Parts: sequence; C-alpha cells; structure tokens
Amino acid sequence: MSQRFVVIMAGGKGERFWPQSRLARPKQLLPIVGETPMLTQTVERLPELVPYENILIITNREQRDAVLACCPMLPPQNIVAEPMGRDTAAAVGLAAVLVGRRDPQATVAMLPADHVIHDVKGFCSVLEAAFGAAEAEPRLVTLGISPDEPATGFGYIQKGERVARSKGRDVWKVKRFVEKPDLETAKGYLASGEFLWNAGMFVWSVPSIRAAISRYVPDLAAGLEAIEKDFEAGKDTDDTLAEHFPSLKKISVDFAVMEKADNVVTLAATFDWDDVGAWPAIVKHHSADASGNVVRGAGLVHDGTGNLVVSTKDHLVAVIGTEDLIVVHTDDATMVVSKSRAQDIKNVVKGLGGDPRWKKLL
Amino acid sequence: MSQRFVVIMAGGKGERFWPQSRLARPKQLLPIVGETPMLTQTVERLPELVPYENILIITNREQRDAVLACCPMLPPQNIVAEPMGRDTAAAVGLAAVLVGRRDPQATVAMLPADHVIHDVKGFCSVLEAAFGAAEAEPRLVTLGISPDEPATGFGYIQKGERVARSKGRDVWKVKRFVEKPDLETAKGYLASGEFLWNAGMFVWSVPSIRAAISRYVPDLAAGLEAIEKDFEAGKDTDDTLAEHFPSLKKISVDFAVMEKADNVVTLAATFDWDDVGAWPAIVKHHSADASGNVVRGAGLVHDGTGNLVVSTKDHLVAVIGTEDLIVVHTDDATMVVSKSRAQDIKNVVKGLGGDPRWKKLL
Repeated sequence: MSQRFVVIMAGGKGERFWPQSRLARPKQLLPIVGETPMLTQTVERLPELVPYENILIITNREQRDAVLACCPMLPPQNIVAEPMGRDTAAAVGLAAVLVGRRDPQATVAMLPADHVIHDVKGFCSVLEAAFGAAEAEPRLVTLGISPDEPATGFGYIQKGERVARSKGRDVWKVKRFVEKPDLETAKGYLASGEFLWNAGMFVWSVPSIRAAISRYVPDLAAGLEAIEKDFEAGKDTDDTLAEHFPSLKKISVDFAVMEKADNVVTLAATFDWDDVGAWPAIVKHHSADASGNVVRGAGLVHDGTGNLVVSTKDHLVAVIGTEDLIVVHTDDATMVVSKSRAQDIKNVVKGLGGDPRWKKLL
Repeated sequence: MSQRFVVIMAGGKGERFWPQSRLARPKQLLPIVGETPMLTQTVERLPELVPYENILIITNREQRDAVLACCPMLPPQNIVAEPMGRDTAAAVGLAAVLVGRRDPQATVAMLPADHVIHDVKGFCSVLEAAFGAAEAEPRLVTLGISPDEPATGFGYIQKGERVARSKGRDVWKVKRFVEKPDLETAKGYLASGEFLWNAGMFVWSVPSIRAAISRYVPDLAAGLEAIEKDFEAGKDTDDTLAEHFPSLKKISVDFAVMEKADNVVTLAATFDWDDVGAWPAIVKHHSADASGNVVRGAGLVHDGTGNLVVSTKDHLVAVIGTEDLIVVHTDDATMVVSKSRAQDIKNVVKGLGGDPRWKKLL
C-alpha cells in the first residue's frame, strides 16, 4: 500500500503582522495565536495522521534555521529550503519530486503553515477522507471551508455534482474556482450553499499531480525532471535547487493546475478554520475583557474599548481612552493602527525598505 | 546696593508626562520641549539678569543628582534638596533663609523650573521691572500672564489700581486671587481685561517675605528661624533640613501669604509663556506635518491626522490611520492615549503603584 505524506508550505513573508513579523521571521514562526509558533502547531496537529518522518516542510533559506528550531520533532533533512520563491506550483512540484523519491505512489497532503485550527480531531478526520478520495481515483482533491460569512478576502470553490463518498464524507466535483468576490457576490455565494472557501489545502497522489503539471505546465514539468535527475545522481539538494529554481515558471498552483484540470474534487471541511490573515483576525482567538479589549504580554487598557494590545513580557504598553486600536510593541519597533486600517500595514512596511535607518526592521 | 537672586523651585513630580516622566525624573529634568531639560533652559534664561552664583535651585533628594547633572554651570552648593515636600510656602521660606545668609537685604525671584518661555529678552525685561518694584518698596510682586484664551486650568489674579511704574511698566495692586474658574467665569475674566493668569513667579526682598511669613504663618516662621539658627551654628544643610522639615506647615505660598498680604502687586508679563501642563500642550512648540502630526525621535505617521508621536532615537514608532492620538515610547514602557483623555494618564500611573510588576515604572 502506498504511503501518506504531508508537505507543509512555509514560505510566507507575513508583512501583515509587522512589527512582530519580519522577512526572516514571518507569521508561521511566531505564536500569533497560542503559545507556540503557528508552524509548530501545524506539525503537532499531524501525528495521528502520518508519522513525523513523513512530514516535510518547504521553506526558504532565510527561514530555514528558524524552521528547524520550531520543529525539533522532524528529521532535519525533511526541511527543504527553496533558494528563491517560485510560487506554489513550483513548491507543489518540488514536494511531489521529494516525496516521489521515497514512494513513487505516495499520496501527499499540501498544507499551509500558518492557519489556526483548534479541532484537531475533525481536521484529521477530514484529511483521512481526502487521502482516501485521492487514493481511490487519480483525483486532485482540494479542501473547501464552509463559509459562515460573506468573506471578500478568500477565493471560492463552487461545488458541482457529488461524485463519491469517502470515509462517510461527500466528495464533490469542482465546478469552478472563483477569485475573491465583492461583498454582494459573496452574499450570493453564501446564500446559494454551493460555495466553499478555498483554503489552499490539497491532497493528491504523486503520479496525479506530476501528470497534471506535465499536461498544464510543461515548462515546470521539465524543470522538475531536471531536479529529479540531479537528485538521482546524488547531487546535493541545495546545489540542485540553486541551479534549477531560477528558471522555474513562477505561477500559483491554483492558476496553473487547479483551474484547468478536469479531475478536481472537493470535500467540505467540518473543522474550525481561520487563516488569521492580519492583526484584527487574532482577536477572536483570545479572551477579551468586558470592554472587548484583548491584551497579550505586558499591557493594560484603561477606559478603552475594542483594542488589541500585544507586547513583550517586560515592556508595559498602557492604552488609555481609545477605541478599536491595534498596538503592537516589539524590542525595536512599535506600531499603532486603527483596526479598520490594518490593511495599510504592508504599505508602511514597504516604505521602510527605502529608509536606510529602518531597513533592519523588515 | 542689595544683590539680586533667583531661586528655582524644581520639586515637581510630573506624572502627567508619563512614561517619559518618573518620580525621580519629572518634567523639569526632561527635554519635553527643546533639546535640553526644561530646568537647564530655565537656568540658561537668567545670566543676563543675575550671575550663576546667585541662582539657587530647591529640589528634593530623589532628584538632586539629576538636577546637578542638568546644571553644571551652577555651583553645586546652590542646589539644595528638601528631605520631603512641604509645599511652596516652606520652599519660599527656605529660599529666603538661604539667600538671606548671603545678603540679608537681597531681592529674590522665585521661578518654576519647567515652563516654556522663548522670548528671553522680554522675560528678562519684565523680571528687571519686577526686581525694581520689589526694591523700591516692601512689596510682594507676582507676575501675571495676560490671558489669550479663557483657560480653566490656571488660577487668576484680578488687577486693582495702578500703584507705580517700574522700568516703564505698570505695577498694579492685586485686588484678589481667584481659583481655577469654570469656562463661563473664565470667559468673563478674559472679556473684562482685569485678570491675569497666576504663573507662580514671584519677586520680593528677603525682609519682605520673611515679614509676611511671620505675620501670616507664624508656625512656619518659627521653623525657619530654627533652621537659620542651625545654619549659623555651622550645622550641615541636609542634617538641618532633615531635622526641621518634617514639622514645617504644609501649605502653598498662595494660600498662606499672597491671598492675605496687603502689599501684593502684579506686573503683566509681555513674553510668551506656557506651563506645558501635559502631553497635548507640547504640540504647539513643535512643527507639525501637513496633517498636523508632530513626531519627536524615531517615528512616522502614515495617513493619520493630529497625532503626537514621541520615541527614542532608535526605536521606530509607526502610527497608521489614527486621529488625535498621543503615542509615547520609552525603553521600558509605551503609552497610547487619545489627546482628549490625557488627563487620565495620572490615574493610570497611580494604578501602577499597586502592581508589583510595574512599580518600577513610577
């Protein structure tokens, strides 16, 4: 029987969690929610599903040491660093090559590194069913999240006909993927009951994804074959990737494969899920005081409502008489932003790159 | 001819400038406005008026070392530390004793340590006239600030008849002192043209103030005589004050003397003056960007209006999309407050005293 693997994609930059997040210390390496880094929490959700030796992480060179430090439970050789970002299609292809060398018929779940999922039991149960669906037929399985609000920050998956059952769960043909909608469209999606959020979690067999890449992204397939050949020749992983990565096509797996392939199916996730995309999203994962203030680390709010205060253990942040602010203190930078303006943080971070004094804060 | 002295009262606690100000580092020791501590600026306004050896500072034990460090231009023995606060009447009495030992007929100007005055020439000119008025007759001279708004944060002085001219300036009898008024009353004061702000700047001769204290606060006069006797016997200053200060009456010079004496006169100050009582007041002393934001130290405001950002040189404070906030960062504490709520800072500071973790921030 073929083995099951999980490959975690941990390459995000996380400028939206500045000043806690930095280029070399993005969200997945920080305890944005909970007490351990998001990546550590992601790995620790998996042992019931696959053994640690079957869990790989694809990260980048800047973050490799930090990833190793976050994941002492994994064999170090399971942590692979891309020499540069080439988007998710290349990462998915590299994952297939790496896993394929261990078991050419293996099934792989591709997971993001930085999502919050509290219901580990539910999560494992859905992934079991997704593995089953990917093993039963040469399918590309994507997990969809049942929306509970007309979110405009996610892409959506429209369900088509039900094509199978796996471990007691419905497997739906994907009718189409749609981009982030406007609010009116999102309301329609929610009301229709036909749409799920695209959470970027995929399950497929090595042969299925390699075949899809060969068919829809032949350039990338050729690059992957060259990488595979070098690996077979015993060439060092870093050297191999340094040689071939620059010429790989830079495209997302959604555009490159998922929106084109005709064997894409989806299962509806029944666990809680949050991609905590920015500071305001962490509030609901922490208990608030009677005025809706959330404080992490050394902070206090005096006569304010709806504030989020994040500090270190030893530096007091005192917030007085304000409403709906986010205040984040770190050793070398502090940010104060209106909750409604959190999307502007990334613009400010970009601006820092142009100031020689503040480049170090990137 | 009798000598002229200036005694600066530098005992304030300055909790309203927390977190920059602390018990042992109040406003007068900080460059709240300008690049040097307010006390240093106060001393450096004076050399045209009196020589440095005739400038004394009355402070407290906690601040003595910092005061010495701020005022290297003064003879160290001119900095005298009270063992405990006994309000301004005791400080004024002590000043008279200290100055009287150098010249029993001397004239003394008593000045606060932490006010902002940019027009040094105008300031010296008014003080010259005040010294003259105090030397010409046994008067208690108080400087009044011509109000330019119906402020409710100051006490007022009502002018009576004009009793003299000094160096070309009118000297008015004081009809009465009035407490901080409500807004309606303050508007009336402003419209009448008869009222000046009480800025706590006084000029008198040693014999005049000693006589007034003997008449209106005999308990205090007795304590001052005991102190004087110990000084004459060559006893150490700190030891003498430690022995006698605890039993001195705790009362302000305004209540104890100025509101009772019948020889109180006032001159109208014609220089700019600001007591910068709290964080919002510093804004007008700094240049703002086009959106009314003032930044001191390492800070930036992105798309916000009317914010005041104060940081250290090396720690960036980034403020995004907010309105009328005050953000002050120091090495061990950061404060964020709505401009309209700055009066609440002192309550928060009081609260810190009850928390063993944050006592160190007082």
